Amino acid sequence: MKNYKPKKRLPTQAYIDGILRGDRVILSRAITIIESNLESDKKLAKEIVQEILPNSGKSIRIGITGVPGVGKSTFIEVFGLYLVKQGHKVAILSIDPSSQRSKGSILGDKTRMEELSVLQEAYIRPSASGDTLGGVSNKTGETMLLCEAAGYDVILIETVGVGQSETAVHGMTDFFLLLMLAGAGDELQGIKKGIMEMADMVVINKADGDNITMSNLAKRQYQNALHIFPASESGWTPVASTASAIKNIGISKVWDEILKFKKLVDENGYFIKNRNHQQIKWMYNNINEELKQLFYGSNNIKNELSTLEKDIVTAKISPVKAAQQIIDQFKKSF
Amino acid sequence: MKNYKPKKRLPTQAYIDGILRGDRVILSRAITIIESNLESDKKLAKEIVQEILPNSGKSIRIGITGVPGVGKSTFIEVFGLYLVKQGHKVAILSIDPSSQRSKGSILGDKTRMEELSVLQEAYIRPSASGDTLGGVSNKTGETMLLCEAAGYDVILIETVGVGQSETAVHGMTDFFLLLMLAGAGDELQGIKKGIMEMADMVVINKADGDNITMSNLAKRQYQNALHIFPASESGWTPVASTASAIKNIGISKVWDEILKFKKLVDENGYFIKNRNHQQIKWMYNNINEELKQLFYGSNNIKNELSTLEKDIVTAKISPVKAAQQIIDQFKKSF
Repeated sequence: MKNYKPKKRLPTQAYIDGILRGDRVILSRAITIIESNLESDKKLAKEIVQEILPNSGKSIRIGITGVPGVGKSTFIEVFGLYLVKQGHKVAILSIDPSSQRSKGSILGDKTRMEELSVLQEAYIRPSASGDTLGGVSNKTGETMLLCEAAGYDVILIETVGVGQSETAVHGMTDFFLLLMLAGAGDELQGIKKGIMEMADMVVINKADGDNITMSNLAKRQYQNALHIFPASESGWTPVASTASAIKNIGISKVWDEILKFKKLVDENGYFIKNRNHQQIKWMYNNINEELKQLFYGSNNIKNELSTLEKDIVTAKISPVKAAQQIIDQFKKSF
Repeated sequence: MKNYKPKKRLPTQAYIDGILRGDRVILSRAITIIESNLESDKKLAKEIVQEILPNSGKSIRIGITGVPGVGKSTFIEVFGLYLVKQGHKVAILSIDPSSQRSKGSILGDKTRMEELSVLQEAYIRPSASGDTLGGVSNKTGETMLLCEAAGYDVILIETVGVGQSETAVHGMTDFFLLLMLAGAGDELQGIKKGIMEMADMVVINKADGDNITMSNLAKRQYQNALHIFPASESGWTPVASTASAIKNIGISKVWDEILKFKKLVDENGYFIKNRNHQQIKWMYNNINEELKQLFYGSNNIKNELSTLEKDIVTAKISPVKAAQQIIDQFKKSF
């Protein structure tokens, strides 16, 4: 434990009132409480989330991913500015369970979004830290609820397209946007399997100058690839388009597609169905993680597992028998 | 419980000796014990698996999937006959956790493979039944080990490309083959998201007669789509090809690709690495399933979850709080 002294906390109701009237300072302080690992803060955070819950949910939640170098920060800034001009209030969050930030720009340098960060209609919050993806997901998810209660009606959740956090972001958003670069093939190596299948839209960024022809080709390739995928339960056929965030080209097209998507899923009932499903799944994910923690958190179990792994690889014990043996041991420990 | 009287069981050693000398009758009886839900049989099954374990593993394990109507049974029969002609001993298993067999022909009608089923070099075993995918996976996985110990050096594991069992099959095989039909698009609707990304090879079946042009087109489309996927950890680039099982066309090409794959992964070390990884994951899957069973198996928990789901959807409680509440309740119950 670091020698860390928390700021003085306000009464619970002060946070709730502040959030509901859109007070950004109070919102930030409430999010800090959500991100805190102090037991007293955890309790307070639960109370705040519980109280603002009926006021959450009134937004479109957009997940944005792409490998480092794809221009995610610039795209998000330009997209955010566009949304603010359209009259929206935009909250930009990120999810990144890795402590090393070297891999990408998960809003690590908030000041890079210079224009956006000064606007009252935009709220930018870098990634919470944590040991587990589940823990970070909870924090980002609850932060999202708070932002919604504070009146932000478009939530952008950024992640780096190289790990497991995409599934987490996909599981808490309505629309999933994948940023790519032209010259497909090598660039794709960094994108994990399965991420492309989650995409509702693929945007080929940096489609400007000499890169336009390649980008249009890439767009067609992705469009074909996306068409060959199985249909999504949402009824939406994923689309591909080109954009240049830096030149401010193709940005409105992205929002237009999101609005088309929203109209479709509002009409066919998928929007609310998916939201309910996501909320319930959120509970189950937490339950399952806690159950694993009960088991894998034990040092005896850890040592035994390490031995069993070796015995399995050398065919000394079958995987099924190994599992039963250690579960029996666990049950006896209660 | 049905009024079911098991056959008299042999001494454990009789099963082990029989399997190791390739006795098909003993092998079948041992598999029946693996599939049995009687406690005494479960114990016996564990002993058998444990003893043959050092003799298992010496095969190439091939997963085969595709939606109903793709011609899977015919393909497997023709492919199996080809492999036997090449001097191999082929075991054909299936995994299918659904009790209704209406969806596909998971070897349900063994006699449909008329030519193959009479050969001594081929062993066909329909799907084990069970309530959970995990349970069925265990049974198919242990059956596979027994077949290997009995000298079968090519294992084909069939599944229907419509559910979750593909991930299970993918997790227990070295090579994953997806059967498709030309006229892509509609046919694909039946294939679950994510399955195509697992494929090491896509075979467009029924590429004969009027269907040849369409099949070649489909092959090219899949080839393009597969290329656009992220590279697999195996270092293998998935391939697409056409075949007509009924006309016996394109079958050797499938085996040639599998051999190429095998050579590659033997040389780059992925084969053994992946096998070890799969074995260890098998244990963890079992552990995690048992942990869930401990929790979700309780009727109190079930009732409480049902209430919490409703409260979450109506925003009465947050998913994180709901999870903690029920986990606390679970801990107290010990």
